[in-house]
Amino acid sequence: MTRRTCKQLRIGHVTIGGDAPIVVQSMTKTDTRDVTATINQIKELEDCGCEIVRVAVPDNETAKSLASIKKSVSLPIIADIHFDYRLALAALQAGVDGLRLNPGNIGDREQIAIVVAAAKEKEVPVRIGVNAGSLPVNFQPNMPLAERMVNMALEQIKFMESLDFDLIKVSLKAFDVLTTIQVYQMIADKIPYPLHLGITEAGLPRTGAIRSAVGIGILLHQGIGDTIRVSLSAHPCEEVLVAYEILKSLGLRQRGPILVSCPSCGRAEVDIIALAEAVSKRLQKISKPIKVAVMGCVVNGPGEAKDADVGIACGRGKGAIFRKGEVVNTTSEDSYLEAIMAEINRIA
Amino acid sequence: MTRRTCKQLRIGHVTIGGDAPIVVQSMTKTDTRDVTATINQIKELEDCGCEIVRVAVPDNETAKSLASIKKSVSLPIIADIHFDYRLALAALQAGVDGLRLNPGNIGDREQIAIVVAAAKEKEVPVRIGVNAGSLPVNFQPNMPLAERMVNMALEQIKFMESLDFDLIKVSLKAFDVLTTIQVYQMIADKIPYPLHLGITEAGLPRTGAIRSAVGIGILLHQGIGDTIRVSLSAHPCEEVLVAYEILKSLGLRQRGPILVSCPSCGRAEVDIIALAEAVSKRLQKISKPIKVAVMGCVVNGPGEAKDADVGIACGRGKGAIFRKGEVVNTTSEDSYLEAIMAEINRIA
Repeated sequence: MTRRTCKQLRIGHVTIGGDAPIVVQSMTKTDTRDVTATINQIKELEDCGCEIVRVAVPDNETAKSLASIKKSVSLPIIADIHFDYRLALAALQAGVDGLRLNPGNIGDREQIAIVVAAAKEKEVPVRIGVNAGSLPVNFQPNMPLAERMVNMALEQIKFMESLDFDLIKVSLKAFDVLTTIQVYQMIADKIPYPLHLGITEAGLPRTGAIRSAVGIGILLHQGIGDTIRVSLSAHPCEEVLVAYEILKSLGLRQRGPILVSCPSCGRAEVDIIALAEAVSKRLQKISKPIKVAVMGCVVNGPGEAKDADVGIACGRGKGAIFRKGEVVNTTSEDSYLEAIMAEINRIA
Repeated sequence: MTRRTCKQLRIGHVTIGGDAPIVVQSMTKTDTRDVTATINQIKELEDCGCEIVRVAVPDNETAKSLASIKKSVSLPIIADIHFDYRLALAALQAGVDGLRLNPGNIGDREQIAIVVAAAKEKEVPVRIGVNAGSLPVNFQPNMPLAERMVNMALEQIKFMESLDFDLIKVSLKAFDVLTTIQVYQMIADKIPYPLHLGITEAGLPRTGAIRSAVGIGILLHQGIGDTIRVSLSAHPCEEVLVAYEILKSLGLRQRGPILVSCPSCGRAEVDIIALAEAVSKRLQKISKPIKVAVMGCVVNGPGEAKDADVGIACGRGKGAIFRKGEVVNTTSEDSYLEAIMAEINRIA
């Protein structure tokens, strides 16, 4: 995994690109005009580990509420702008830390130039956010979808560069995983800017998390991607949780415990699924990135338990508790949960 | 995505490798000695799309129940054998369609030769299943883990080849995603046999599905992998569901509907999450692989709804229903669900 080289930029106090950690983003799902609800959701997002939050700005009234929201939260805010460039100007006025423009519905060069001039003055980065679902039908209609998406982004990038603006971040999202992988691969070595990854409209959590993990995971493993947003039809904190699980699985970020637990089979002498669920529930209160193993038999149990910070390898009516590779305790079946939690609490 | 070339083999009536579809496997979690419970779970697995089922065979009594189980189910059965080669012989006697041997705990060459001779006579394939958690500590102790796993598999493969046996399938599983990717990449062009992929002991469904999707997804996208098993601490049908979502996301298999749904944001004029959940619930009864889009606003809504077999793009109090790219109906907010389901039922 060699990471793609790109320029670095800052959204508020958060650095994106270069050798900065991959940044986790989400988006509020409240009515942005409801200032209190939006502030509360941004605070929830901050608590669950979100690092940048995007807020929809569909109209003037929303643009006005941005100033109040911005004053009450510490997470950097990106204004999501479609159709009307004047909303971008109002958002900059309100003090946002970043803009997202969709070149599929704000194409007028004079309008873009006005927004870019204002962003440049305030040193606010702009994401060029191309989506498969909002490409104008008359843009290169005879080309394949992937080329159309990449070409639309490249056109917009060149225009912004001609205005001597380089605080640029780029996304090229589609629902289709293979299309998404292809477009990011196509643009990766053509531009020097950070890339924001996502599988758009990925669906409900159970299936959308899997689509997102496959698509974002493949790109990150190729070294592509500087910030990610998982799009799920769910509370935004669920998006953040999934984003961190993707990053943790590739060793790119740490956040909270990692639970190794065996799937159980006809060999297990204990209800390992129930035990894993109980341990998982209690681990939610622990923020330290420890590795915990809950294993049901002697095949892989001792090996995995040994490899974890704390582990239990259950056998016939008895379980061995491991700490950092050594057996520190043996316990009977009725106290597995207490025994492993005691050891976890000792190191957490 | 160019698929790795390998030999083909058959587990019962199911073909694995070569240009065969990527096969979905799972494992029973019942006590194998409880014949009725095990048969019932195998039937549940068949209903949810599992194509091969593995059954733990920890002792002689279990080996005996295999014959009764085998007679009552139509899914091919693989016996999971550790420690004692005689259980493999008993499983072959009971009529299983495949064996899984763990070279980490059955290393004796004379014993392996006896099993291979019996498998050869019955033309039953053997999976050499190496797990990070059950590598003998004294096997190449100074080498890195990935090399040790690959070398253990290669040693066993060479020995079986020396016995003129080539009905071989190989797996190299670890909990660590990067290790798993590395070992499969290392072995992929060294052997001509089908590869069985999995992230072992991936944990509970929410996090385990994501780890599995990242690891298995990256390998499949590199053309590596002929059959997959998702290991979750959950009912085995959950493993099958996750396996299909991974394969569907890469266009490798079809199974049931695909739901595109927007994450919702401050722009949505309707509770799009509740609508997506309601549609998803009703789609469970549909087996046809149709693509359905539930979209909350005019940014990507019309584009995604147009691209689906059936879609709804909601706006201010009204929604447009699309069928195969054309608007076929406009509906008011109180009948979104009925309107889209009517259209789905028309084509499903």
